[in-house]
Amino acid sequence: MRLRNVKGAAKILENNQDLVILEPKLYRSKWHEFFGNQNPIHIEVGMGKGQFVYEMALKYPDINFIGIEKYDNVIVRAVEKLREQKPSNLMLIRMDAEKLLDSFADGEISRIYLSFSDPWPKNRHAKRRLTHSNFLKLYEQILNKEGELHFKTDNRLLFEFSLVSVSLYGMLLKNVWLDLHDDPDFDSVMTEYEEKFATMGKRIYRLEASFKR
Amino acid sequence: MRLRNVKGAAKILENNQDLVILEPKLYRSKWHEFFGNQNPIHIEVGMGKGQFVYEMALKYPDINFIGIEKYDNVIVRAVEKLREQKPSNLMLIRMDAEKLLDSFADGEISRIYLSFSDPWPKNRHAKRRLTHSNFLKLYEQILNKEGELHFKTDNRLLFEFSLVSVSLYGMLLKNVWLDLHDDPDFDSVMTEYEEKFATMGKRIYRLEASFKR
Repeated sequence: MRLRNVKGAAKILENNQDLVILEPKLYRSKWHEFFGNQNPIHIEVGMGKGQFVYEMALKYPDINFIGIEKYDNVIVRAVEKLREQKPSNLMLIRMDAEKLLDSFADGEISRIYLSFSDPWPKNRHAKRRLTHSNFLKLYEQILNKEGELHFKTDNRLLFEFSLVSVSLYGMLLKNVWLDLHDDPDFDSVMTEYEEKFATMGKRIYRLEASFKR
Repeated sequence: MRLRNVKGAAKILENNQDLVILEPKLYRSKWHEFFGNQNPIHIEVGMGKGQFVYEMALKYPDINFIGIEKYDNVIVRAVEKLREQKPSNLMLIRMDAEKLLDSFADGEISRIYLSFSDPWPKNRHAKRRLTHSNFLKLYEQILNKEGELHFKTDNRLLFEFSLVSVSLYGMLLKNVWLDLHDDPDFDSVMTEYEEKFATMGKRIYRLEASFKR
């Protein structure tokens, strides 16, 4: 994600608290209340500019979506888009993924999406990858019994790392795609990146995994 | 594997029983005795013409290798090659993989190689794939505690199937390569197919997995 510096990003977020929650801790264990229904809650960790989570929210009105992003400069781009019309089943959170447990109670979430996460290619940065066991531990806690992790990327090395990480953690791989756009059956909502990559003929990798309970 | 009909294949095998064991059941639980040492035993299931297992045997003299192939017409090709000089740590078996338990005792084997196995692309033939759970069950029994399954293929759909099959069976993925020949660190002994595919720039997929004990 290239971080174009958005002038007054913090100010914009403060003025749009109907779109972005800046203190998500306040809603821990109260997200169903917040949305006013008992529909499942799906979150995207690292939503970037938010196209994926926005289109998912439009496509699946009976699911509540929460897009999570830590960078002010990035999340304002999603805010700018949602200003026009925000689906009532979508909310944004400005938060670091490391703090997931502060904002979500055990089993409160039904699905976690990771899309084109930062690959952190250097081995010494492996712990920052969102499929590192340290993060899987957090996901395991906030996901409910049937909860799943859905991850896609164009980065081969990150995907190799993730397959092994997920497996060694003890998760089950329920589905794997090694060339997502070659599968005629997969009705994919695409991210901004994905649209570009697909046009370039680049492969997209995808997995669906669950925790053993 | 194209099955060129080798004239008198059965006869050739009968005349070369120093190279091929036609009744492997006789050696069940006696393979270390057979090789005359306590070195680990690695088997290749579906060795085809045997180039891989032959080169592995030359490269790793302190490991005993057994190449398994069910088709007479194919295994004679390996026999023709080995007639010149068979490494003492290599033996061939003419056998169907479904019969593994008849010929190997519990924990007798340290590693199983599968190389470019038949993909059986039709769903109704999924049970014939050598990474189907029915086969994993056999491997689990004959492998020792630290035993591993090493599988490579150029077939994307077979590899996707295998990742999921291995994971749902409860195995652990210890290593995954989604483009083996792009890894400068991997010192690969190649099969006949692999050499051809590599020249064509085709991707080779590979995994190493173990059973949880």
